[in-house]
Amino acid sequence: MPTILGQNQYGKAENRVVRITRDGATHHIKDLSVSVSLSGDMDEVHYSGSNANVLPTDTTKNTVYAFAKEYGIESAEQFGIHLARHFVTSQEPIHRARIRIEEYAWERIEVPGEARHSFARRGQETRLAQITYDGERWEVVSGLKDLVVLNSTDSEFWGYVKDTYTTLPEAYDRILATEVSARWRFDWTDDEQATPDWETSYEQTRGHLLQAFADTYSLSLQQTLYQMGSRVIDNRAEIDEVRLSLPNKHHFLVDLEPFGLKNKNEVYYAADRPYGLIEATVLREGREARIPADLTNL
Amino acid sequence: MPTILGQNQYGKAENRVVRITRDGATHHIKDLSVSVSLSGDMDEVHYSGSNANVLPTDTTKNTVYAFAKEYGIESAEQFGIHLARHFVTSQEPIHRARIRIEEYAWERIEVPGEARHSFARRGQETRLAQITYDGERWEVVSGLKDLVVLNSTDSEFWGYVKDTYTTLPEAYDRILATEVSARWRFDWTDDEQATPDWETSYEQTRGHLLQAFADTYSLSLQQTLYQMGSRVIDNRAEIDEVRLSLPNKHHFLVDLEPFGLKNKNEVYYAADRPYGLIEATVLREGREARIPADLTNL
Amino acid sequence: MPTILGQNQYGKAENRVVRITRDGATHHIKDLSVSVSLSGDMDEVHYSGSNANVLPTDTTKNTVYAFAKEYGIESAEQFGIHLARHFVTSQEPIHRARIRIEEYAWERIEVPGEARHSFARRGQETRLAQITYDGERWEVVSGLKDLVVLNSTDSEFWGYVKDTYTTLPEAYDRILATEVSARWRFDWTDDEQATPDWETSYEQTRGHLLQAFADTYSLSLQQTLYQMGSRVIDNRAEIDEVRLSLPNKHHFLVDLEPFGLKNKNEVYYAADRPYGLIEATVLREGREARIPADLTNL
Amino acid sequence: MPTILGQNQYGKAENRVVRITRDGATHHIKDLSVSVSLSGDMDEVHYSGSNANVLPTDTTKNTVYAFAKEYGIESAEQFGIHLARHFVTSQEPIHRARIRIEEYAWERIEVPGEARHSFARRGQETRLAQITYDGERWEVVSGLKDLVVLNSTDSEFWGYVKDTYTTLPEAYDRILATEVSARWRFDWTDDEQATPDWETSYEQTRGHLLQAFADTYSLSLQQTLYQMGSRVIDNRAEIDEVRLSLPNKHHFLVDLEPFGLKNKNEVYYAADRPYGLIEATVLREGREARIPADLTNL
Repeated sequence: MPTILGQNQYGKAENRVVRITRDGATHHIKDLSVSVSLSGDMDEVHYSGSNANVLPTDTTKNTVYAFAKEYGIESAEQFGIHLARHFVTSQEPIHRARIRIEEYAWERIEVPGEARHSFARRGQETRLAQITYDGERWEVVSGLKDLVVLNSTDSEFWGYVKDTYTTLPEAYDRILATEVSARWRFDWTDDEQATPDWETSYEQTRGHLLQAFADTYSLSLQQTLYQMGSRVIDNRAEIDEVRLSLPNKHHFLVDLEPFGLKNKNEVYYAADRPYGLIEATVLREGREARIPADLTNL
Repeated sequence: MPTILGQNQYGKAENRVVRITRDGATHHIKDLSVSVSLSGDMDEVHYSGSNANVLPTDTTKNTVYAFAKEYGIESAEQFGIHLARHFVTSQEPIHRARIRIEEYAWERIEVPGEARHSFARRGQETRLAQITYDGERWEVVSGLKDLVVLNSTDSEFWGYVKDTYTTLPEAYDRILATEVSARWRFDWTDDEQATPDWETSYEQTRGHLLQAFADTYSLSLQQTLYQMGSRVIDNRAEIDEVRLSLPNKHHFLVDLEPFGLKNKNEVYYAADRPYGLIEATVLREGREARIPADLTNL
Repeated sequence: MPTILGQNQYGKAENRVVRITRDGATHHIKDLSVSVSLSGDMDEVHYSGSNANVLPTDTTKNTVYAFAKEYGIESAEQFGIHLARHFVTSQEPIHRARIRIEEYAWERIEVPGEARHSFARRGQETRLAQITYDGERWEVVSGLKDLVVLNSTDSEFWGYVKDTYTTLPEAYDRILATEVSARWRFDWTDDEQATPDWETSYEQTRGHLLQAFADTYSLSLQQTLYQMGSRVIDNRAEIDEVRLSLPNKHHFLVDLEPFGLKNKNEVYYAADRPYGLIEATVLREGREARIPADLTNL
Repeated sequence: MPTILGQNQYGKAENRVVRITRDGATHHIKDLSVSVSLSGDMDEVHYSGSNANVLPTDTTKNTVYAFAKEYGIESAEQFGIHLARHFVTSQEPIHRARIRIEEYAWERIEVPGEARHSFARRGQETRLAQITYDGERWEVVSGLKDLVVLNSTDSEFWGYVKDTYTTLPEAYDRILATEVSARWRFDWTDDEQATPDWETSYEQTRGHLLQAFADTYSLSLQQTLYQMGSRVIDNRAEIDEVRLSLPNKHHFLVDLEPFGLKNKNEVYYAADRPYGLIEATVLREGREARIPADLTNL
C-alpha cells in the first residue's frame, strides 16, 4: 500500500455546558465550551471502518455533562484534568486526550433583597485552557483572546528599513492598539507536583499583560509584546512560556487639511484589513518552547 | 413606462471614527461606527445616471471625520444631530438624513503614575443611536444590542395551549436567558425643546432594563419583556416608546439519569438554534408607535 | 396605567430542516432554515404571564418538522403557505402568521454508476422567502442575499455635487461591484388566484437581476439598481415590487507610481469598510409599495 | 535576564488584491487575500525597540500590490513564490518568508454580444496556498476550506465501544455530511525541480476529494477521510501528504412518532453544535509528515 496513516485524533467539539451552583439564595455560574480530542490505536477505523476501538464522540459529550455534575467545575483547567485523565485511564486504546475549553465570564446584576441569581455576560476577553495527558505527563496551556487594548500616545515607529517599496512615513506619536491573543504554559506536568491555583493565576496573568501593555513606552509593537511576555515570566513562577499574537489594529490619523482643519492627534480612522501581525514566544531561560508558533495553520 | 421608482436612500455606511480628547496627561476616547443615509430629489440618478443632485458617499464619509474635529463627539446622539442637520440644510436636493451609530465602550487601564491614556474595550453591549431629520422634525431612537443576561431561577413556563404537535413538558423552575436588543424613542422632536442629557439617559435606561430583568419573577418571557419596557417608560420621562427583541436562549437541563446521576437544576446544555424569539413594543399611553416592528426584514 | 402594549409577535426562529426525497436510487434534497412569527390575542401573557393563549414556540418547531413529512417541501414559498395557514386557522387567538425561510442550494456530485445521493452545497446566494397570512390575505415576498457580482469596466462616476468636504476625483472607467440583496413581492394575495410557479419564478428573476447588472453601462450604482429592478418588473408579470439593497463594494486602483509602475486598471485593493449603500424600490405602476425600506432597523 | 525570546514572526495579514487581465474585450479576474509573515534577525526590535532590521509591514503590503502588476497572478502558488523569494533574497536580516493566500473563485455572467467583463463570485470553497522559503528549500502546502458535502445514504455507524456514558443507538442508514478542510503538501522543494502545474493540480485534487467522499460506502467518518486522502496520494504524484479536518455535521432524524407520523429517513434536523471532529494525515509511504496536526491552536 503506497499510503499510510499519520497523526490522527477525534472527539466532540464545542460542548456548551453551563453549571449552576447554589449557596442558599446565592447562585454561582460557570459557562464553558468544551472540545474533546482523543488519539490512540485508531488505525483500523481508518483502514476498514471497524469501530471496535472507537468510543463514540457522542459518549465524550455525555461525559462532559456527567462530569459537570460529578466533579463540579472549580476551574476550566481542573475540569479538563478530570476529563483527560478519565479518557486515557478508562479506555485502553486511547493513549492521549486533549481537552480545549473556552470560558465566558459573567458578572452579577445586583438587585435589592437577598436573592442573587441574576447575571450579565461580561463579554470582554474569552478565557482559554488546553489540557493534554498521555497517561504520564500533563501539559496545561491557558490563555485568552479578544482582549482589545489601546494606548492613545507613548508609541513611535521609525528607524526601519526602507527599500524600493517603502512609502510609510515615520511616526513619533501614534495610537497603538491590538487585540491580545495569549497562551501561557504551566510548569505543572506531573501528578506529584502541587497544582497551581488556576483561578488566581489567570487573574494575575491577565493583569500583568494589561499593565505591561499600558506602561510600556513603545518604539515597536514587538517591543511591547516582549514586555508583556517577560512581565508574566518575571512575576508568575508557575508559568514557563508565553506565546503572544498581536494584530496591529491600525488607527490612521485622518488628513483634514483639505477642509482647512488641523488634526492634532484627535481624529482617527480605525481600519479593519490589512493589519500588521506580530507573533512571538517569550520563554523562561532553560525551558523548552512547546506552544505552537501559529494560532492558525492556514 | 410601466415601472416607477419608490422610496430610495443612499450614503456611506460603517465609517469607523475614533476621537481622542486630551485633558493634560489624561485622555478620553469615543469610538463610533457611523452610517449616513440620505434621501431627496434623486429620481434622475436612477433613471438616467445623472449625478447632478448626488453628493458623493465619499463626501459624506469625509464629513463624518471633519465633524469629529469641528464639533467633537459629546455623545453619539449629539454627533448625529450635527451631521443630519448639515446634510439637510446645506444640500437643496437632500430632504431627509438618517444617521445610524454604533458605539463601542472602553474602560481605563489604571497604571501607577499620572499618565492616563490606556484603555481596554469593554466588549459587553453595543450602544446604538439613530437620528433622523427632515428639515423640521427630529426623531431620535437610541438602544443597545448584544447584552446577554440570565436568571438561574424564578422562571416558570406552564398553562400554555397544547395541540397535536405539542410535546414540551411544563417547567416550574427553569433558567431564563436572553440577549437583549432594545430601541427606545425620545419625545424630543423639535429644536425648540431642550435636548435630553443623552449620556445620563443611556446609563439610566440600561440600568432599568437590567434591574427589571433581574427582579421579575417570570411566568413567560413576554411578561419579563413587558416589565422591562414599562420600567423604562415609568422612570424615564424623555422616552415615549420601547421596542424589545428577546431571543429565548434556551438552557436545557441535561438528562443524567442514564448515568445514575440526579440533575437538580445544576447542569445545562446552552443551545444555539433554534431559539424562541419574543418581540414587542411598550408605549407611553397616548403616544404613537414609530419604531419598526422588525429589527431585520428578511 | 401609563404604559400600553404595542405590536408584538413571537415564535421559534431558525429551525433548520433538511428533507430528503427518494426516487429509487436518486435522492433529492431541500435544506431550509424556517422562522415562525405569530401575532394575535396576546395581551394577557405580557401583562400577567398567563400562557392560556400561547402555543409554545417549541410546538411551532415541531410543526415545521411534521409538515416537512406531511406535505413535503415543493418550494420554500409553498411550504411557508402550509405553515402560515395552519397556525392562523387552527388557533383561535392567532390572527397572523409570518414564516421566513432561508434556502441553501445543493448541487449533485456526479459519480459513476446509478446511485445518486451525493451533494455539495453551492454556497453562492441564499434564497429567501417570507409568507404572511392574516386569515384573508396572503403576502409573499421572495428574494436572495449574498450574491456578489462585479463588472471590471463599463462603469463611470462623475458630474456629482462638490461641496467643502468633497475630495473624490471623477472616474471614467472603474470597477463596479456589489453584493446583491433583493426582495420581490408577488401579486398573489388570495386563495382564489392561481399560485405562481415559485421555482421557475425564482430562477428567472435571479437571471434577470444578473443580466441587467452585467449589461448596463453604468454612470452610477443607482442607475444600475434601477435597471435591475425594472428588468424584473418588465419581465415577470407575477411580481409587483422589487426592493434592492446594493452595497458599493469599493475596488480602489492602487497607486503604483512610487514604485515606477503604471497601473492601467489592473491592480485593485478591495476594501471592506466603509462602503457606499444604495437602496431603492422599483414598483409596477399603479401598485402600492409594501416591502419595508430598510433591511435592518438599527 | 531570566527570560529569552523564542520563535517570532511578523508581517502584514489579509492584503486583498484583485487583478484584472485584459484580453481584448474579454477580461480575466484573480481575487486573493495575501498574508506575509517574515522571520530572521529580529532580537533587537523585541529587546530594545530598534527597528534597524525591520522592513515595515506596510512595505510588505506595497510589495504584494506591486508584484501583482510586475508578475501578474498566474496562480496563487506562483505568486507566493515570487513574494517569498523577494523577501528572503533582498533583505539580509530576513531568513524565512511564509506567504499564505486565500483565493475566491469567480464565474462569468454570460451576456449577449462580445463584451465579457461581468462576474459572479462562486462562493463555494475557498482555495488556500501557503508558500514557505528559507533561502534554500521551498515548502508549498495548498488546500481548501468551507466545502460542504453530504451523502443521504450509504453511511452506517455501529460496533463501537460502549462505556458507562454511552447512550447513542447504532445507525445502519444515516446522513453523512461534513465541511471539508484539506491541506496537501507538494514534493516540490527545490528550484532545480520542475514546478507542478498548480492550477491543474488544484482542480484534480479537489475532484478526487469529492469523488472519494461520494463513492465511499462509509462505516465511519474516519474511513471516509482515509479514502479521500489516499485517493489523492494514489492519483497525484506531485503530492506527498494530505491533512484532513472533517467536522461531522450531524443530521438527526426527527422523531415524528408523537404526531402519528413515520419518518423513513426523510426529515432531519441539521445541528450546529456540538459536532464530531475527525482529523488525520494521509501520507505517501517513506515521506515525512510536515503539515501541523491542528488547523487551530486553541
